[in-house]
Amino acid sequence: MSLCRLLLAVVAALLLLNASEGLKNVAILGASGYTGAELMRLLHNHPEVNVQVLTADRSAGQEFKTIYPQFSYKSNLPKLSKWEDSKNEITKCDVAFCCLPHGTTQEIISTLANEAPKLKIIDLSADFRLKDVNEYEKWYGKAHTAPKLQTEAVYGIPEINRKDIKNARILANPGCYPTAAQLPLVPLLQAGAISSEDIIIDAKSGTTGAGRAPKEAFLFCEVADGIHAYGVASHRHAPEIEQQLGAACNKNNVIVNFTPHLMPMSRGILETIYVKLTNGKTAADLKNILIEKYKDEQFVHVLDGATLPQTRFIRGSNLCMMNVVQDRVPGRAIIVSAIDNLMKGASGQAVQNMNIMLGFPENMGLNISPVFP
Amino acid sequence: MSLCRLLLAVVAALLLLNASEGLKNVAILGASGYTGAELMRLLHNHPEVNVQVLTADRSAGQEFKTIYPQFSYKSNLPKLSKWEDSKNEITKCDVAFCCLPHGTTQEIISTLANEAPKLKIIDLSADFRLKDVNEYEKWYGKAHTAPKLQTEAVYGIPEINRKDIKNARILANPGCYPTAAQLPLVPLLQAGAISSEDIIIDAKSGTTGAGRAPKEAFLFCEVADGIHAYGVASHRHAPEIEQQLGAACNKNNVIVNFTPHLMPMSRGILETIYVKLTNGKTAADLKNILIEKYKDEQFVHVLDGATLPQTRFIRGSNLCMMNVVQDRVPGRAIIVSAIDNLMKGASGQAVQNMNIMLGFPENMGLNISPVFP
Amino acid sequence: MSLCRLLLAVVAALLLLNASEGLKNVAILGASGYTGAELMRLLHNHPEVNVQVLTADRSAGQEFKTIYPQFSYKSNLPKLSKWEDSKNEITKCDVAFCCLPHGTTQEIISTLANEAPKLKIIDLSADFRLKDVNEYEKWYGKAHTAPKLQTEAVYGIPEINRKDIKNARILANPGCYPTAAQLPLVPLLQAGAISSEDIIIDAKSGTTGAGRAPKEAFLFCEVADGIHAYGVASHRHAPEIEQQLGAACNKNNVIVNFTPHLMPMSRGILETIYVKLTNGKTAADLKNILIEKYKDEQFVHVLDGATLPQTRFIRGSNLCMMNVVQDRVPGRAIIVSAIDNLMKGASGQAVQNMNIMLGFPENMGLNISPVFP
Amino acid sequence: MSLCRLLLAVVAALLLLNASEGLKNVAILGASGYTGAELMRLLHNHPEVNVQVLTADRSAGQEFKTIYPQFSYKSNLPKLSKWEDSKNEITKCDVAFCCLPHGTTQEIISTLANEAPKLKIIDLSADFRLKDVNEYEKWYGKAHTAPKLQTEAVYGIPEINRKDIKNARILANPGCYPTAAQLPLVPLLQAGAISSEDIIIDAKSGTTGAGRAPKEAFLFCEVADGIHAYGVASHRHAPEIEQQLGAACNKNNVIVNFTPHLMPMSRGILETIYVKLTNGKTAADLKNILIEKYKDEQFVHVLDGATLPQTRFIRGSNLCMMNVVQDRVPGRAIIVSAIDNLMKGASGQAVQNMNIMLGFPENMGLNISPVFP
Repeated sequence: MSLCRLLLAVVAALLLLNASEGLKNVAILGASGYTGAELMRLLHNHPEVNVQVLTADRSAGQEFKTIYPQFSYKSNLPKLSKWEDSKNEITKCDVAFCCLPHGTTQEIISTLANEAPKLKIIDLSADFRLKDVNEYEKWYGKAHTAPKLQTEAVYGIPEINRKDIKNARILANPGCYPTAAQLPLVPLLQAGAISSEDIIIDAKSGTTGAGRAPKEAFLFCEVADGIHAYGVASHRHAPEIEQQLGAACNKNNVIVNFTPHLMPMSRGILETIYVKLTNGKTAADLKNILIEKYKDEQFVHVLDGATLPQTRFIRGSNLCMMNVVQDRVPGRAIIVSAIDNLMKGASGQAVQNMNIMLGFPENMGLNISPVFP
Repeated sequence: MSLCRLLLAVVAALLLLNASEGLKNVAILGASGYTGAELMRLLHNHPEVNVQVLTADRSAGQEFKTIYPQFSYKSNLPKLSKWEDSKNEITKCDVAFCCLPHGTTQEIISTLANEAPKLKIIDLSADFRLKDVNEYEKWYGKAHTAPKLQTEAVYGIPEINRKDIKNARILANPGCYPTAAQLPLVPLLQAGAISSEDIIIDAKSGTTGAGRAPKEAFLFCEVADGIHAYGVASHRHAPEIEQQLGAACNKNNVIVNFTPHLMPMSRGILETIYVKLTNGKTAADLKNILIEKYKDEQFVHVLDGATLPQTRFIRGSNLCMMNVVQDRVPGRAIIVSAIDNLMKGASGQAVQNMNIMLGFPENMGLNISPVFP
Repeated sequence: MSLCRLLLAVVAALLLLNASEGLKNVAILGASGYTGAELMRLLHNHPEVNVQVLTADRSAGQEFKTIYPQFSYKSNLPKLSKWEDSKNEITKCDVAFCCLPHGTTQEIISTLANEAPKLKIIDLSADFRLKDVNEYEKWYGKAHTAPKLQTEAVYGIPEINRKDIKNARILANPGCYPTAAQLPLVPLLQAGAISSEDIIIDAKSGTTGAGRAPKEAFLFCEVADGIHAYGVASHRHAPEIEQQLGAACNKNNVIVNFTPHLMPMSRGILETIYVKLTNGKTAADLKNILIEKYKDEQFVHVLDGATLPQTRFIRGSNLCMMNVVQDRVPGRAIIVSAIDNLMKGASGQAVQNMNIMLGFPENMGLNISPVFP
Repeated sequence: MSLCRLLLAVVAALLLLNASEGLKNVAILGASGYTGAELMRLLHNHPEVNVQVLTADRSAGQEFKTIYPQFSYKSNLPKLSKWEDSKNEITKCDVAFCCLPHGTTQEIISTLANEAPKLKIIDLSADFRLKDVNEYEKWYGKAHTAPKLQTEAVYGIPEINRKDIKNARILANPGCYPTAAQLPLVPLLQAGAISSEDIIIDAKSGTTGAGRAPKEAFLFCEVADGIHAYGVASHRHAPEIEQQLGAACNKNNVIVNFTPHLMPMSRGILETIYVKLTNGKTAADLKNILIEKYKDEQFVHVLDGATLPQTRFIRGSNLCMMNVVQDRVPGRAIIVSAIDNLMKGASGQAVQNMNIMLGFPENMGLNISPVFP
């Protein structure tokens, strides 16, 4: 070990002594679900944060390791508490991650934003993603109760609008399907390389996307060894995708075909996207636009040659992999993108956003290689 | 038990005594693969046939139950032999099923058709499906060696061209992906209800479709817990689909987008098909056309209401289930169809075709309910 | 088609005209669970029975095909009803299958047995399996409310006590784990070839065994890609196994080690059973005892040579496959047995028992080959 | 960020400038298999090592990311080369990991040990695990060609013989099954708490254990949705287990029953171990012995209360979780242990051993939380 490295070790040791002093405190609201557990996996190895509060509803009062025994080898994790009982503590935190059902989310975030104006809130629900309150009401069946905060909230995919995220107080963390769609489509629409009028997104999702609440449809025997489409022409991620694609090409009436499928994998989203080329563009042009756009990004990668993304290539990581193929139908191309729905599609992106909001290196705590097989 | 039923029992008992006399003898060439094993599952409980010959290449000389121990409780199954060594016996059979690799198939079928002109041949390979020899050469990289037989061969999906099948000598059994596509699309094209110019078929397949030959890409760890597209814009089932859809609407230049995906299920194909409506048609119109078309069919079923097909609903059976949904994009509809690739997509349809060719009730030996879960 | 076969066809056709007259009517109580659906799969193709009543609790009022769309291609299935609302109809049936939770079962069967003394009742729950009411109370936490019927009930595995089944009014259909254990162990204990004092049963089960009720522990993501033991030293199938093994060797204090595991497969039980040989017996001796015992049985098969059973070899069928291996530890042998928990472990065996009770051929409606892959 | 943390950042930045100078160079021989890829996942994020050489046989000449596209987002990985072509470079490395087939391994390691006496060799094959050359010959069918090195090699599980590992030149990295067995059994045998004469190890393994070579038995369709025992009473990990358990209790004739099963999961081993208690010990005593033994270990964890290990709890991590249950059979206990076969069962343990051999903190590069779901 060189002298220099030795010095590092000494400094590191010193730091450990007063480590908790300088750390940012975070709360995870709704920690008993899969996105909550994934946040724990990430934050708990993050060198600059301390997980201070974990809330849950039905599981309140239990140890976190009781409901997620994979953390049982860790000591000193906070117990799960009702959010009301921990409100004081939450308001003293630096960051609160909200993994709560929609509706509930509005109410709690309103309270927190009011009582703790400096608290950074990263919301993993859908409640603050749609900018148009009418659109929200149409898709969610009731009026939004915090329209002001909805306006304030910043919808954030770092690779697309990094600057806006930096100063956000309330961050609307994007949905899993919309993330996998926007990463390839936004730059292509911005470049005017594809038509906004004929986009078909055929999406295949793993089952963590459905959450941990016990429902017959997500029992092992109902999901294993088969596939089906669901929410066809009616999934709530459609307006989110449309809002963002519309923004990318300055149109406010983009309508996409978005067809999600549920399949037997735990993590992962694969989107096969069918687009019409404009202005004589080719698939190779699309690929070049994407390569150029993401050449300095750590988490978004355009695959070489004809290699197509597999969800296995990115499992457990914060990566998005993509590629473009020329369709045999003239004037058409096929784009495939893959993310881990719990990582780049939820908790990984949330931590990436947190890093930006707190001024940490964007990949801190996220240098996790994919797990394969 | 009523007298009448008793009588039946007596007759049945008598029949058992001389059963093998009246049975049709069949040969399965290439019996060691999954489609061969599936034919065995069906034929071996079929009341009118006797499996007389089983051929294999590398496994020749072995007992069938050695390579498929699920049949070990059955006695008297023929041993696997090299096809050359059983040629005499095959030519004396009534029907030969060919589950051989393409190329090899042409050669063997030419020989059999020449030496045994009365033999009914049902070919499960792709060798006799394309009518245009140039198209064959283009997609398979070498000239077809039996172009005359290719002309003679009948491409047969009973629900679509039952009459042609009846008198076929050489039956080109359709591919799995093309079957799942044609069953909904052919009637709609025939009715002029959808455009032939903008058809996108996003297909998801189980792994039996890849066969039993050991390849890295189909190892458990390479397929489990993930999904990927393959053969994008280059899969050999595309020209088969295009030929048949073209025939349905009397055009010879139909080009479709066909994107297959491999996923972790053993059996099943789900196709999500995106179509453009013509002449003011609606999704409801499409559904009515399909209901009308298939109302008397046993194996093709249009689901009620908004229920969408799952591969689990038809696993192990000869069924095709389908439904139609109005897209949010105006003028578009989404069709979903599901089959078991080894059944309606291969061996089940082959037996259905055999039943027609031999004059048996079409569902004989195929009254098998789906296995769920 | 020979004349004889033609005659059969004519008789069969005549029969179809008055078929429903001679058929036995059956009710399935608790038809919404997996064993209920499996009974439907079997009975509905059974040539001598008519499914007359289907009951359910939460799903009452719905069409059966709404909850099991794989049956949607069938018409004329009875609607699901509350059992109280169909009591009259049930009492007029010939057979009632009870797929109800324990506790409830006792109450309903008491009522039915009282009001319809001729009704044959086949109970798939655990309520009538234990002969000792104290043992029942110990394991189920409350006194049995129908001890007389408990005494009357016949515990029935056809291959073991076929004669007792014939005249049973109330048939206690064995548990899945106990069936896979008894088929190899009972003959060996009866022959005095193994010790009753050192039996270790390591069992691996598919997830249908847990039923269709939504519980977190059986969600896809909690079961996929992993395995765990559960109910160790406390599973309620242990006393059932011990009672039956004790009966086989005339001891009433047999205690076995029984350790079940839950794993990612839909159907199937594999039991790896570790036994001590007695009286100088070898593994080959054990195998010969089993071969001799089951040589005329259609559903129980001892595999040749060193081939070990896989659950895949019997999936979807009523088969039990088994084999015996000499352990490297002197004086020990390893037995492996496999069944489909929904078939030979539940509904298949129930139909086999019904066939015996009604005087039909034992394999009627059960000639179903395994589905592989 | 406190001043102290700022200082750290500066030091770290300085370090990055000359980082590669101080790093240890490692070679991975046989990098194309799953253990090779797992080593890459670990080493490539390890702060003190640089992966300098990757060898392969059939894949030589290809980019590593061609065969493992999950690494395609990384640049500057060495190309795969034939080991002969990189011999010079390997001999200059600090550490060589050998993930080669047995037999080949002996030959290559002999060469390397001869030509580069200072090279640390960590062998993941079975070639240097058995101390008795006769035993090796008996189980592997031919004489060992490097008996001297076999004597020199240190068999290393850090939690059991950490001291021996420190100075090893050739480290025999333990097998996956033996690791999961020894971690609970060695301390119990050393404490005289269980009998060495009646140990039954029923093991369930994921499919990565079978490697990446294409074989029919490991195709998706042959592994999915089922389970089977294999290598019963004949698996080559049995003598390894027996050697090590014998050493723990100073007996040289320990014979265990070891029965492995293959099941549909990618990673993970679960061992359910049946033991006889000695000297009046109880299951609680066993548990206390294990808690005491592992209380300061980071990677081995005895679960609280009745929580039983699941392979999901440790997937992707270097953890071993275990627990003990009192059997209902008097005088017996059941131990369950779980590891990830690619991590604590292979590559993770190899890196842990490397850390010890090179004087790094034992958990460097291994602070990876389990991935669940």
